[in-house]
Amino acid sequence: MSRKSPVIVDLKFDPAVVAKALSTAFADREVINVADPATAGRDLAGIDYAIVWNPDPDLFSRARDLKVIFSGGAGVDKILSMAALPEVPVVRFVDPSLTTRMSEWIVLQCLTHLRQVSAYARQQRDRLWHELSQPAAEDITVGVMGLGILGRDAVEKLRVMGFNVIGWSRTKKIIDGVETYDTAGLETFLGRTDFLVGLLPLTPDTTGIFNARLFAGLRQGGALGKPVFINAGRGRSQVETDLIAALNAGVLGAASLDVFEQEPLSPESPIWAMDNVVLTPHAAAASDERALFRYVESQIRQFEQDGSLGNLVDRTVGY
Amino acid sequence: MSRKSPVIVDLKFDPAVVAKALSTAFADREVINVADPATAGRDLAGIDYAIVWNPDPDLFSRARDLKVIFSGGAGVDKILSMAALPEVPVVRFVDPSLTTRMSEWIVLQCLTHLRQVSAYARQQRDRLWHELSQPAAEDITVGVMGLGILGRDAVEKLRVMGFNVIGWSRTKKIIDGVETYDTAGLETFLGRTDFLVGLLPLTPDTTGIFNARLFAGLRQGGALGKPVFINAGRGRSQVETDLIAALNAGVLGAASLDVFEQEPLSPESPIWAMDNVVLTPHAAAASDERALFRYVESQIRQFEQDGSLGNLVDRTVGY
Ligand SMILES: NC(=O)c1ccc[n+]([C@@H]2O[C@H](COP(=O)([O-])OP(=O)(O)OC[C@H]3O[C@@H](n4cnc5c(N)ncnc54)[C@H](OP(=O)(O)O)[C@@H]3O)[C@@H](O)[C@H]2O)c1
Ligand SMILES: NC(=O)c1ccc[n+]([C@@H]2O[C@H](COP(=O)([O-])OP(=O)(O)OC[C@H]3O[C@@H](n4cnc5c(N)ncnc54)[C@H](OP(=O)(O)O)[C@@H]3O)[C@@H](O)[C@H]2O)c1
Repeated sequence: MSRKSPVIVDLKFDPAVVAKALSTAFADREVINVADPATAGRDLAGIDYAIVWNPDPDLFSRARDLKVIFSGGAGVDKILSMAALPEVPVVRFVDPSLTTRMSEWIVLQCLTHLRQVSAYARQQRDRLWHELSQPAAEDITVGVMGLGILGRDAVEKLRVMGFNVIGWSRTKKIIDGVETYDTAGLETFLGRTDFLVGLLPLTPDTTGIFNARLFAGLRQGGALGKPVFINAGRGRSQVETDLIAALNAGVLGAASLDVFEQEPLSPESPIWAMDNVVLTPHAAAASDERALFRYVESQIRQFEQDGSLGNLVDRTVGY
Repeated sequence: MSRKSPVIVDLKFDPAVVAKALSTAFADREVINVADPATAGRDLAGIDYAIVWNPDPDLFSRARDLKVIFSGGAGVDKILSMAALPEVPVVRFVDPSLTTRMSEWIVLQCLTHLRQVSAYARQQRDRLWHELSQPAAEDITVGVMGLGILGRDAVEKLRVMGFNVIGWSRTKKIIDGVETYDTAGLETFLGRTDFLVGLLPLTPDTTGIFNARLFAGLRQGGALGKPVFINAGRGRSQVETDLIAALNAGVLGAASLDVFEQEPLSPESPIWAMDNVVLTPHAAAASDERALFRYVESQIRQFEQDGSLGNLVDRTVGY
């Protein structure tokens, strides 16, 4: 049996956390962590695997014999847009730890808007004891755009919490108890949606999809009066000038945003100070480093056994 | 067949909402809404049923022939403490609409603390883009005190969201995947609990149960550092001076409170201004009036058929 190929790690996460997780990972092969200064200038030719998140621009020219690239996150838009990306399989990160976190964030935001958290917080600040009229979860239709790994888990958990849920994806899906729409059904889908949840990958088709026209198509006059926009997919899917205008004009009643056109969001952005916006810094579903390395270990084991790989990115559609 | 007994309604809810819901309820019998001035002074003798929430002190002396009393809410501590309460069956309100609402509130509070909402809100105010280290839901043990109708539903939904859940009740329960404790196991239960959820009825045994000694027994040094107290049962189960001291001393990291020793909470209470407390005005799970009347209709139908009643209060234990 030939010597096992090392694995290159180029993850722009917290370096200490990466190093700690690596200390117990890949017991059967060498790890080359490019964040480690000792690896500078090292010849990376002949190495089969790399795990990357925002890798150095010259990584793929240095590691010119890669057989598989593993993405450190679920989204691959940045990797796919790298000019030097070689024509080898790209594997996405899919793991219960990540899916669970994303659904936590989505359910938290939907409950926050349903249960009028910001109105109650204002009343607390004003020492005002006053019960607000409260619609039932089943009177709110949550429309989930993107019914992949993350969207389907969110749909299921939102249903458990009592919401009425509908879904939208490129290709039509069958989900028990959930009305679903494909690209052609977008208008009908939007017209029924009170809370819009974005869990789409960034592709040419989804760039700028959350724009003035889309916001105007959401249902007005639902149980909470105005629609709510919740996005944890990718920021470049939203047109922020349109979003701000829709919030200011009352086309949207509120929003929860984890992703932004430019990240970090500029300190100048008016979004920070909008009192009907909940903002988190692309933190909805961070990859857990230990889970990531376990995942890559098992993918490599399978690949070295029979050449197969799971959760492959389809470059023709871009996700 | 004899004429059907009228039903007396004495609900201190929003009068307009009660009147509206009554307009389509009890089609087969007369309704006497004591909030209606036209009913003042009317003889209520000979009437079988009353639906009450904070009823007039003289209601039971006026309606001296009641056969069944229906509580307008799930809790019956106030009714049971009324001196004039006749020795007739008291039926609690149990309905999916109420249970769903309570679980919304409990899951919302647990996710709010897990996902560090108040820290992120401060960062938003300060225009600070900074990702916090994030424990997984499974690293948090939610200990639910009270495993009745509401506690069991909350347990199930917290598990769906990924939390580790344990439970405590007067008599030992068997719940799949959940370690449970009875009265004797309180100390062990507390020592494992990161988020304590109170869903207990108010009885002599549960009055003041959430006190300094109990808070000191909760696990310190869990995944979020300090324990969190979440109460939606009854306010007189908590000793607020102890609670405030525990929050100030860092014995508790945070709290979510829907109920208070005295309601409305006095504008003088320091709790309003504590930035590690989420406060709602006894609004976790309001009774839906239409659902309440449908429920009473079906209970009366059953009672008039075979004399049976569901969700009866056990006066010896007080809930
Ligand atoms: N904020 C965060 O912390 C965070 C963390 C992880 C991931 N994410 C984002 O979440 C995205 C979704 O992740 P995932 O694992 O659920 O991806 P996935 O399994 O690939 O699912 C993507 C879904 O989007 C649909 N879709 C793609 N292009 C579409 C189009 N043009 N029109 C309609 N539907 C379209 C797909 O439709 P089909 O089913 O028809 O293919 C699929 O249902 C990732 O790409 C990433 O950008 C964000
Ligand atoms: N904040 C709100 O908006 C709101 C709305 C509705 C209800 N509530 C409150 O929620 C409470 C619970 O409602 P529920 O429908 O779940 O009541 P339930 O079905 O009667 O359940 C009560 C639970 O508490 C346990 N319990 C009672 N006394 C105990 C003691 N001394 N030690 C240990 N466990 C004890 C019971 O134990 P066993 O199982 O052994 O009997 C049972 O598991 C109500 O009583 C009400 O006060 C609040």
